[in-house]
Amino acid sequence: MEIKTATEQKSLLTTLAPGKRTRLRRLLFEFGPGHGTLLLLPIDQGIEHGPRDFFPNPASKDPEYQFHLAAEAGYSAIACQIGLATKYYPDYAGQVPLILKVNGKTDIPPSDEAFSSTNASVEDAVRLGADAVGYTLYVGSPRQDQDLHQLKGVREDCERYGMPLVVWAYPRGRDVEKKGGQNSFYAIDYAARMAMEMGADIVKLNFPKFDPEKDKDQPAPYNEMDLSPEEAVRQIVESAGRALVVLSGGSKTDDETVLGHTRTIMGAGGSGVIFGRNVWQREKSQALEIIGQIKETLLEHVRRIP
Amino acid sequence: MEIKTATEQKSLLTTLAPGKRTRLRRLLFEFGPGHGTLLLLPIDQGIEHGPRDFFPNPASKDPEYQFHLAAEAGYSAIACQIGLATKYYPDYAGQVPLILKVNGKTDIPPSDEAFSSTNASVEDAVRLGADAVGYTLYVGSPRQDQDLHQLKGVREDCERYGMPLVVWAYPRGRDVEKKGGQNSFYAIDYAARMAMEMGADIVKLNFPKFDPEKDKDQPAPYNEMDLSPEEAVRQIVESAGRALVVLSGGSKTDDETVLGHTRTIMGAGGSGVIFGRNVWQREKSQALEIIGQIKETLLEHVRRIP
Amino acid sequence: MEIKTATEQKSLLTTLAPGKRTRLRRLLFEFGPGHGTLLLLPIDQGIEHGPRDFFPNPASKDPEYQFHLAAEAGYSAIACQIGLATKYYPDYAGQVPLILKVNGKTDIPPSDEAFSSTNASVEDAVRLGADAVGYTLYVGSPRQDQDLHQLKGVREDCERYGMPLVVWAYPRGRDVEKKGGQNSFYAIDYAARMAMEMGADIVKLNFPKFDPEKDKDQPAPYNEMDLSPEEAVRQIVESAGRALVVLSGGSKTDDETVLGHTRTIMGAGGSGVIFGRNVWQREKSQALEIIGQIKETLLEHVRRIP
Amino acid sequence: MEIKTATEQKSLLTTLAPGKRTRLRRLLFEFGPGHGTLLLLPIDQGIEHGPRDFFPNPASKDPEYQFHLAAEAGYSAIACQIGLATKYYPDYAGQVPLILKVNGKTDIPPSDEAFSSTNASVEDAVRLGADAVGYTLYVGSPRQDQDLHQLKGVREDCERYGMPLVVWAYPRGRDVEKKGGQNSFYAIDYAARMAMEMGADIVKLNFPKFDPEKDKDQPAPYNEMDLSPEEAVRQIVESAGRALVVLSGGSKTDDETVLGHTRTIMGAGGSGVIFGRNVWQREKSQALEIIGQIKETLLEHVRRIP
Amino acid sequence: MEIKTATEQKSLLTTLAPGKRTRLRRLLFEFGPGHGTLLLLPIDQGIEHGPRDFFPNPASKDPEYQFHLAAEAGYSAIACQIGLATKYYPDYAGQVPLILKVNGKTDIPPSDEAFSSTNASVEDAVRLGADAVGYTLYVGSPRQDQDLHQLKGVREDCERYGMPLVVWAYPRGRDVEKKGGQNSFYAIDYAARMAMEMGADIVKLNFPKFDPEKDKDQPAPYNEMDLSPEEAVRQIVESAGRALVVLSGGSKTDDETVLGHTRTIMGAGGSGVIFGRNVWQREKSQALEIIGQIKETLLEHVRRIP
Repeated sequence: MEIKTATEQKSLLTTLAPGKRTRLRRLLFEFGPGHGTLLLLPIDQGIEHGPRDFFPNPASKDPEYQFHLAAEAGYSAIACQIGLATKYYPDYAGQVPLILKVNGKTDIPPSDEAFSSTNASVEDAVRLGADAVGYTLYVGSPRQDQDLHQLKGVREDCERYGMPLVVWAYPRGRDVEKKGGQNSFYAIDYAARMAMEMGADIVKLNFPKFDPEKDKDQPAPYNEMDLSPEEAVRQIVESAGRALVVLSGGSKTDDETVLGHTRTIMGAGGSGVIFGRNVWQREKSQALEIIGQIKETLLEHVRRIP
Repeated sequence: MEIKTATEQKSLLTTLAPGKRTRLRRLLFEFGPGHGTLLLLPIDQGIEHGPRDFFPNPASKDPEYQFHLAAEAGYSAIACQIGLATKYYPDYAGQVPLILKVNGKTDIPPSDEAFSSTNASVEDAVRLGADAVGYTLYVGSPRQDQDLHQLKGVREDCERYGMPLVVWAYPRGRDVEKKGGQNSFYAIDYAARMAMEMGADIVKLNFPKFDPEKDKDQPAPYNEMDLSPEEAVRQIVESAGRALVVLSGGSKTDDETVLGHTRTIMGAGGSGVIFGRNVWQREKSQALEIIGQIKETLLEHVRRIP
Repeated sequence: MEIKTATEQKSLLTTLAPGKRTRLRRLLFEFGPGHGTLLLLPIDQGIEHGPRDFFPNPASKDPEYQFHLAAEAGYSAIACQIGLATKYYPDYAGQVPLILKVNGKTDIPPSDEAFSSTNASVEDAVRLGADAVGYTLYVGSPRQDQDLHQLKGVREDCERYGMPLVVWAYPRGRDVEKKGGQNSFYAIDYAARMAMEMGADIVKLNFPKFDPEKDKDQPAPYNEMDLSPEEAVRQIVESAGRALVVLSGGSKTDDETVLGHTRTIMGAGGSGVIFGRNVWQREKSQALEIIGQIKETLLEHVRRIP
Repeated sequence: MEIKTATEQKSLLTTLAPGKRTRLRRLLFEFGPGHGTLLLLPIDQGIEHGPRDFFPNPASKDPEYQFHLAAEAGYSAIACQIGLATKYYPDYAGQVPLILKVNGKTDIPPSDEAFSSTNASVEDAVRLGADAVGYTLYVGSPRQDQDLHQLKGVREDCERYGMPLVVWAYPRGRDVEKKGGQNSFYAIDYAARMAMEMGADIVKLNFPKFDPEKDKDQPAPYNEMDLSPEEAVRQIVESAGRALVVLSGGSKTDDETVLGHTRTIMGAGGSGVIFGRNVWQREKSQALEIIGQIKETLLEHVRRIP
Repeated sequence: MEIKTATEQKSLLTTLAPGKRTRLRRLLFEFGPGHGTLLLLPIDQGIEHGPRDFFPNPASKDPEYQFHLAAEAGYSAIACQIGLATKYYPDYAGQVPLILKVNGKTDIPPSDEAFSSTNASVEDAVRLGADAVGYTLYVGSPRQDQDLHQLKGVREDCERYGMPLVVWAYPRGRDVEKKGGQNSFYAIDYAARMAMEMGADIVKLNFPKFDPEKDKDQPAPYNEMDLSPEEAVRQIVESAGRALVVLSGGSKTDDETVLGHTRTIMGAGGSGVIFGRNVWQREKSQALEIIGQIKETLLEHVRRIP
């Protein structure tokens, strides 16, 4: 089965109210690589996976490392939880924009019924001078009713305060696993649409993985589709509509893959990347080097005007 | 067993407070086919089923397609979730009325205990200039207590702001399946009454399906009734009392079925139709053609003054 | 074992604050048979059982039938849910008092853990000009904690607004079934006391049924008691203390049973009856006839001054 | 193992804010036996056990019986639920102090996961002129998190309004049963401390029962302790610290046991007794007689100045 | 695998708003051993374990014992629940700072799904003159979503009132047990980071225990690490970042272990200790003696300026 696409996303910024537009422009044009792109540094792995993610580069255990890196290397924004935002961000206020993640959890319990409750508020973000709020939505989880309702409150507060909303859209839960898994094209495509329909301004997605064994469990017609990664990512970006898409990297991989993913997402009409471990699990000078290459790649492949 | 009916529904509009009346008149008389009819375009399949519903007509993946179609073809209203209402409706504000759906969910988890939490509010609808609010009620679900209580809040807000309330009344859940299934006459008849008694101004129902194998599981006397589709729909419309009834189409079918359903609902005293996939899974010119035929059919068979 | 009773209930009205007293006097003295009696017409079967209860008398499917009947035959009040109260009661405002039921549910899921969430508020009742509020309490359900807490809110609002509180006190749930069932003397006696202690002004109870097979499962000493129906009802009325008691009829039965139950409850010091299907499942003239007989019986057997 | 005790409880009243002190002094010195003692009459068995508790003395089914008895015999206070407080207490206002119990439940479902939700508020108590509020805490229940959080709200309201807080501290639930049972010294000792630490001013406890078969399941060192009832009660009173302790009687027993328990609790530094069925399951003159004996015993054995 | 650490924690106090800074300085410099250290006395074992913890030293059952000890021996603060804070702390107000613990529970039910609901509020702490609030977080529990959301409310109130937040960070629950247990280095390291990221100003942790049998169940690379206790504690302190760390002692042990732990935590850059049973399960003069030694050890090994 062949799927054709016909759309060219229109501008997001023109649909936004002044507060959101002001803040989002900072990320897209005033900080980071600019030209409408997003280069985001996430530092929430300490709660999502625990301190072990810092072991490959012990310096990274001190949040100073990431904040300094984000400011020095010129990121569009750094994304973290309330504790870091309160105790570490103040020294970097004004030097790099802040995305306050308002929910999160440890990975100790299984994720069959994944749900991440809020541990901070949009008001916290306003108070801390953040330029956006991050929310993790577990698309397809048996507890989606709680999740969607909680997101409602966050979204409404974002509208009240003119705060852009970044949704980490993660397919998750036992039913997702039965239908091809959390990394399937089906699941990520659905997550992209879901986040946009729930009011995300920016959607953070994982790069889909193709696995013939699991892909056949996807609902039709996904189970019969055979797309190139480039085409799949293009479809996913389209599913997110006017919401901007940033792709994440997952666990640390080689440079070529990192840059390849960057090319793919930009070529597909996405707006940028959010790489954590692939960056700060490296020693400082190496981190700065790969960041430089990512920025270059981003700017070379910009296709979309946000 | 033969069931006789004796009632002729009285006017709904005369029972409504000014705000509801003002807004509902827009849908019934000022937009769409008019003359007290309703032609509604739903575009919530992206969250209820995922992007795959757009594959038969790739153009339909861009919400622009549906908004433009609704405005161009002259719909009574377009129904969508908060994300589309915020990012796509503004360009069409005033050109086609908006029904903001305030709850929804993915179809990834099973629906044994179906419940759809709110992801938007009646205040959102007021702010966006909507003319009605849509709510999905899963009649008969084990979680009906949560659902009915949540609906209470939405209904009260609708009364506070003079916003008409459209209830998508869907029989659902493991106990419905044991009693003939979600498409049985029993279940849909019950859903019609339930929605009206809970305060719906308009009830959206599915066309009942007859299946001897499952119909015998319906509670008495439904299990022994043998009604024509026309008679069944007439009964269902009566169960909804003064609330107006619109019938939906479900997955894409042939033109004659679409028009036949339209005739049936109008002949039964219903107020209109809400066809999604049957319309926008077609290429634009074909969509416009079938819409024209539906409008004609609606107007030819109007029986009820709302 | 013989049980003696020694009490004569004192006046309820003298214990009530002005708002409750004013409204309750309307039901007891100004409408219906008067003289301190209650003749109530329930029309909530459409949600509690579905439309099938209307099949024996198709005219009854139109709520107009019951509202007109209540006004024409001179009822003390009509009891219904928010949808009917909003869309049908206005035409009869002032002609027959309204009891707004504020919770309810379908009977599609099993009632092992019965709980009926609120779908309307005491404020709704005030706005609609109701003279009382109705609440269904599932006595003994595993979810009694939710139920009693929810009732707290309704009761407090009733006190705030001077609104009489009518409690439909139904033993229900898996543990009730293990102890003799929902119609046992034990269960109904307990329900009567429970409703009064929770703040009911009027308690609606079912007529107990005697079934040697199940009665032996009742907790001691109920399992060894052998009372006449008259004596059992007298005990139950006593358990409700100063709260007034009305007895319901359940499914349609013959005239003599209807009138017999009326005699029994009034003779036991009860205040009236609430018959639904036994009345409106009859054709209009027959309904009016049995209503006339019930009223006569009520007035002939009044024993209690409320 | 021998346990020595070294403490002498200091005054509770001196630690209380004016509102609590004013009200509590009424119970301790102005009503009942006085001299810092408490003689409380509970009449909540109608909801906790049902009407069957009234069968041994049919007159007791009418709440008038208990209210009249409490006033006539000179009780420190009568404790009941909202329904009785609203409909029966007004006639006795000012003649006997009221303790409004704000939570309760039927005993129909099993108590494996016991939890008693609130059905009345501290504001209700203020409005009714009560001098204290009663709360049932199920210590050790799997639902303790709900219970403790609910108690927080009640305690805070008690502080807001200067209302003394009486905690019925009952070990309960499946895990208590595994550790020696709800009447074990271990469980009651724990309950005493828990209630005090949660903010109780007065703790109501059951008399511990010794049962070698079950006692060995108590956690160490309780499983190896061999205390006299007097010593056990003394320990329990100490565990409640500055909170006053009243002991209850449970089901009806003989006079000597009733008076013996009274001697024991007073000798142990407790403040009084709360006997229900042991009093009002007797005919009036017999009830008055045993009450006279209890009062005498209380006053003869006072050891503690509250 | 060898883990190197590279960080030196910066000052916490400089990142705090005035209210928090004022109060925290009292604990760190004005009371207790001073010089930026913390010597905390917990007396919440009465609810967390029951009265049996007081049996080794019967005098300790009277909360007076601990309050007097804390004031006399010169503690930085005493930590207790609302009941003790209300009834015992007033006599010591101004003599020793108070940390009000706002949640807690009995240990009667199993801790597979541990969650400790709040029983007091930050407002209670303000009213009582407390200088900090204590919160128990069960890191990794299946109910972490409730816990983290509840902590959000406490944290926000702490920010509103300038109240320092001390988090008792305890790994707990069935999934923790599957991954090496609640005392593993993995679990405690994770808990340290989690508490800091959730906004703790001070983190209270248990001393990790090494057990080859269980340690191999820890997630990689923890399962292959072989650290000295000193190194493990240093890692844990680093994981808590700018939040101060105090280590607890658990059940009573010998003097050398107590002092050894004190040396270890201070040498690792921690800020102090919180020993309960190790102190107050001793007779007064012995308690004072060990306290003196602990203070000396603390001051000798101070490494960190808070």
